[in-house]
Amino acid sequence: MSRRTGQAHRSGRRQAPRPQRKVDYRHLQNPFKPHEIYFPEQIEQIHATALRVLSGVGVRILSSSARELLLAAGCTLDDDVCRYDPDLVEQAVASTPSEFQLRGATEATTHTVGGRHVVWTPAGGIPHASDLDGGKRPGTLADWEIQTKLTEHFDVLHVTSSGPEPQDIAPNVRHLATGAGVLRLSTKVPFIYARGSAQVADGFEMIRLARDLSETEFESAPYCYSVINTNSPLQLDEPMLDGVIDFARSNQMTVITPFTLAGAMAPVTLPGALVQQHAEFLSALVVAQLVRPGAPVVYGGFTSNVDMKSGSPAFGTPEAVSGAFATGQLARRLGVPWRSSMASSSNLVDAQSTYEHAMAMWGSVLGGSNFTIHSAGWVEGGLTGSFEKLIVDVEVLQQMAELMQPVTFDDDELAYDAIAGVGQGGHFFGEAHTMERYQTAFYSPLVSDLSNFGQWVERGSLDAAERAAGIWRQVVSEFVGPALADDRDAALEDFVGRRTSEGGATPLS
Amino acid sequence: MSRRTGQAHRSGRRQAPRPQRKVDYRHLQNPFKPHEIYFPEQIEQIHATALRVLSGVGVRILSSSARELLLAAGCTLDDDVCRYDPDLVEQAVASTPSEFQLRGATEATTHTVGGRHVVWTPAGGIPHASDLDGGKRPGTLADWEIQTKLTEHFDVLHVTSSGPEPQDIAPNVRHLATGAGVLRLSTKVPFIYARGSAQVADGFEMIRLARDLSETEFESAPYCYSVINTNSPLQLDEPMLDGVIDFARSNQMTVITPFTLAGAMAPVTLPGALVQQHAEFLSALVVAQLVRPGAPVVYGGFTSNVDMKSGSPAFGTPEAVSGAFATGQLARRLGVPWRSSMASSSNLVDAQSTYEHAMAMWGSVLGGSNFTIHSAGWVEGGLTGSFEKLIVDVEVLQQMAELMQPVTFDDDELAYDAIAGVGQGGHFFGEAHTMERYQTAFYSPLVSDLSNFGQWVERGSLDAAERAAGIWRQVVSEFVGPALADDRDAALEDFVGRRTSEGGATPLS
Repeated sequence: MSRRTGQAHRSGRRQAPRPQRKVDYRHLQNPFKPHEIYFPEQIEQIHATALRVLSGVGVRILSSSARELLLAAGCTLDDDVCRYDPDLVEQAVASTPSEFQLRGATEATTHTVGGRHVVWTPAGGIPHASDLDGGKRPGTLADWEIQTKLTEHFDVLHVTSSGPEPQDIAPNVRHLATGAGVLRLSTKVPFIYARGSAQVADGFEMIRLARDLSETEFESAPYCYSVINTNSPLQLDEPMLDGVIDFARSNQMTVITPFTLAGAMAPVTLPGALVQQHAEFLSALVVAQLVRPGAPVVYGGFTSNVDMKSGSPAFGTPEAVSGAFATGQLARRLGVPWRSSMASSSNLVDAQSTYEHAMAMWGSVLGGSNFTIHSAGWVEGGLTGSFEKLIVDVEVLQQMAELMQPVTFDDDELAYDAIAGVGQGGHFFGEAHTMERYQTAFYSPLVSDLSNFGQWVERGSLDAAERAAGIWRQVVSEFVGPALADDRDAALEDFVGRRTSEGGATPLS
Repeated sequence: MSRRTGQAHRSGRRQAPRPQRKVDYRHLQNPFKPHEIYFPEQIEQIHATALRVLSGVGVRILSSSARELLLAAGCTLDDDVCRYDPDLVEQAVASTPSEFQLRGATEATTHTVGGRHVVWTPAGGIPHASDLDGGKRPGTLADWEIQTKLTEHFDVLHVTSSGPEPQDIAPNVRHLATGAGVLRLSTKVPFIYARGSAQVADGFEMIRLARDLSETEFESAPYCYSVINTNSPLQLDEPMLDGVIDFARSNQMTVITPFTLAGAMAPVTLPGALVQQHAEFLSALVVAQLVRPGAPVVYGGFTSNVDMKSGSPAFGTPEAVSGAFATGQLARRLGVPWRSSMASSSNLVDAQSTYEHAMAMWGSVLGGSNFTIHSAGWVEGGLTGSFEKLIVDVEVLQQMAELMQPVTFDDDELAYDAIAGVGQGGHFFGEAHTMERYQTAFYSPLVSDLSNFGQWVERGSLDAAERAAGIWRQVVSEFVGPALADDRDAALEDFVGRRTSEGGATPLS
C-alpha cells in the first residue's frame, strides 16, 4: 500500500475517508516452501565441482591487495591466477553469517537479510532513464532523484538502489551527489558503488555523518551495501576486489554476483553455468572472509541464458527461473543469504516486460531469495530504467506482498450466519457482514483498472503504462522528504563541499 | 513449442534447418508442491460448515428431474429448496473418481484429469471477439473458427473451449455449427454447452459420428465436457441441472463451478466464500453421482472478489490466488480433480492483463489445478476473447511448460572440462561443449523480442501485442486441419442437415 499517493488517490475519488487496510509491506516473510529442482546429491556435486574448479583451474585476481591476502592464506598464485585450497573455501563459508541486520535510518527501514525474510530493491546499474513522455535518454541527477523518491515512497521497495546513472554530473563528484542525495531523500539503506577505495571511503563517511555514527558504531552492523560483479569467466577485477576488501573491513554488506550467462560467459548447460557461478562467488567470498571473518556477504545468483539468435542476454526466461531455484538450493547448502533479480529484456513496458518480470519474481519467491535486486523498473536488459515500469512492478510486488500477509480464519470469517441470512438467490452487497468489512476486505489496486469496457473507453482507453505515468508523476510532485536534522544536513554539506574542492575521487571503473 | 509456425518462423530467419528441441507440451506433470494457506483442521472446518449449509440452509433446485432424484435419495424439499443429509453428500464424494481419462481423437490429445496431470484450455464463454485490427465486436463463426484453429495448433492448449460465441448463427442451430466444426478442425476434446437436453443430445451424437463410436463405447469414457455454473448464492437453474444429469448419464465430464465472487454473490471473507463455493459444488455433485455413481466431475474453483469501487469482478488478484490455493486443498480433501482459471479483468492486452494472467497461472499451478480453463485469450473479465492475448498467453504457458520438463543432470552437463578449457576471461561461444548444444539448449520464444533497442526500433518498435497479431494471422493462414475420414465427414454433414431441417434445438439459457 502506498503511504501517500494511495490516500491521495482515494480521497480524490470518494468523499468520505476510508479506513486504511492494516498491511505490512515493509517486513515480509516468505510463506512459500522453496522449490527444489535438483536432488541434494546433485547440489553436492555442483558444490564439489566448483571446489575442483577453484583448486584446479583457478581465478584471475586483478588486485594486488587481494593477491597478497590470498597468498598469505596459503593459495597458490601462478602469475595472477589464484588456486584455492578447498579447506580454505569451506572455512570462508563457515564464517559467513546466515542472517544479519541491514540498518536503515529507522526501524521501519531496517531489514533482516536471511532466513524467510524478503527484501526488495528497485532497478539499479541502469545507464539510461525513460518515461512515456520523455522517452529514453542518458540518466541525469533529476532522473536519479525521481527514482529515489519513488523508492522512498513505496513500502514494498525496502532498500534503495543505484538507480539511473546521473551522467550529467562529473564522474569524480557523482558519488558525492548521490551519496548525500540518498541520505537526504530517503530513510532506506543506501547503495554504494565499488568504484575504487576513495569513493567508497567517501560513501561510508557520508553515512556516518548523516546517521550520526562513530566509526565503531558504523562497523557494528551493515548500513549500506554494494554489488560485486565478477568478470566471468573466472576473473575478478581491481575495483570489484578492492570493494570486497573495503566493505568487509568495515563490516558492510556485499552482494557477490557472478555474471554467468549460459552459452556466453558460462557453459551452455545449467549445471555447468551453476558450477561456474558457485566457483566465482566462493572465490570472492574467501577474500571477504579473510579480511574479516563474519563479514556480511550475500550470494548473488544471476545465471540466465543468452538468446542464441541475437547474442543478447535473456531475462525472465524458464532458464533464469530454473537458475534461481537452483541458486536457492546452493545458497541454503552453504547457509548464506542469496540475491535474485526481477529482470526483463523487453525494450518497453508491455506484455513481454510484464511476463518476464512475473516469471523472475516467482523464481525469486519460490527460490527463497532473501534479497532481490532490480525488483521494479528494469527494462531493456538493464540498460534502461523506466518509471512507468517501476510503478507497474510495484503493483505486482504489492500483490505478492498481499500473498505474504498472515492468513485470518475464524467462525466469523466462515460466515455461516451471513450465508443463512441471504439464503438462495439475492446478494451480499447490503449485508451487515459485508458492510462491516468491505472497505478493508480486499487489496486496493494501484495501477489496475477494473472498470468495464464502456467506462474505460470514456476515461480515455488508457493502458496500464499510461496510467502508471500519472501515478509516478503524482508521487513525485507530492513527495515530502524525510527530515534530516539540521546539524547532520550541515555536516553533509560541509563534507561534500570539502571533497568537491579537493577534486572528489576519480572512479576506478 | 508451436508445431507449424514455430518452424516457419525459424526457417524464415535462418538458412540452415535447426534441430528441433524435444519437449512435450502436450502431457504435462506439475512438478510444484501444492501451496497450502490453511491448516488441515481449517479445511475440515470449511467442509463441515458447507455440510451445515447444505443441511440447514439448502439449495434452490430449479429442475424437476433433479428434485425428483434428490427426493428419492432422501433429501427434504421445502418448495424448491433442497436440504441435504451429510451422509448422502459424503457418499457422492466417495463415488467421484479422483482421476480419469478425457479422450481426444488421438493419443496425443487424450489427457488424464487428476493427480499431478495438467490440462489447459483457452478462453471460453466469451460473447465478444477482438483483435488489434478489427477491434471488439460480437463474436462470429469466423472468430470461433480462428480460435479453434489456434487451439488446435498450439500443443500447450490441450483441450478446446467454447470460444467466442458465434452470434451470427441462429441460436437453434448454433450448436450444430460449432459441434460439427470443432470435430472437423480439431483432434482435441470438444466442449458442449449445457443449454438444454436436446442440444446436448445433438452434441453427443456428433461426437459419436465423427469419432465412430457406438453408444456403449461413448459411455465408456468422457469424450467431451461442459461447465456447470451455479446461480450463486445457493441456486441451480434448470439447464445447468439438466446438463449435470445428461452428462452424468452418458459418463461425460462436467466442471461444476460456483460463481462465488466475494462481496457480491458470496460472503466478503475468503473462508465464507469458500464455504459457499464448497456447498454449491457438493449440491450439484450429489445430483451427478445419484444419476451415475462414478460420473467424472471436476470441482470448479472460481472464487475471486468484486472490486468494491466499481462492483466489477476482479480477476488475477491476490484474493483469487488465495482462493485457488484453498480450493486445491479442498479438492484434495475430497479426492476430486479441480479446475482453476487464468482470468484477467483488463480491457486490452497490456501490462495489467499480463500480470493478472501470470498471477492466476501461478495460483493454478501452485494450487495443483488439474484442469485450467480460460488459460489463454481472456480479457475484460471474460466478456471478450482477444487473439493477441491468446498468443501472448501461449508464450507464457510454454514457458511454464518448460519449467515442467524433466530436469537433466550428468557429468557432461556439469561441464568441468569446458570451464577448464576456456579458463579465465574469454567466452564459451565457440567451444565444442557449446556448439554441440546451442541450437537446442534453450527455450525459443514465440512472442518475446530479445534484440537490442536499436534493432528493435529499426524493426518498427513493435510491442508484444503487435508481434502477437502477426503470429496468430500466420498460424491461421497456414492452418491445415486434421483429416476426418470421408465417411465420418459425410455422416456429420447428413446429421447436421437433418437436424437443421427439423429446426435444430432452441437453447434453454
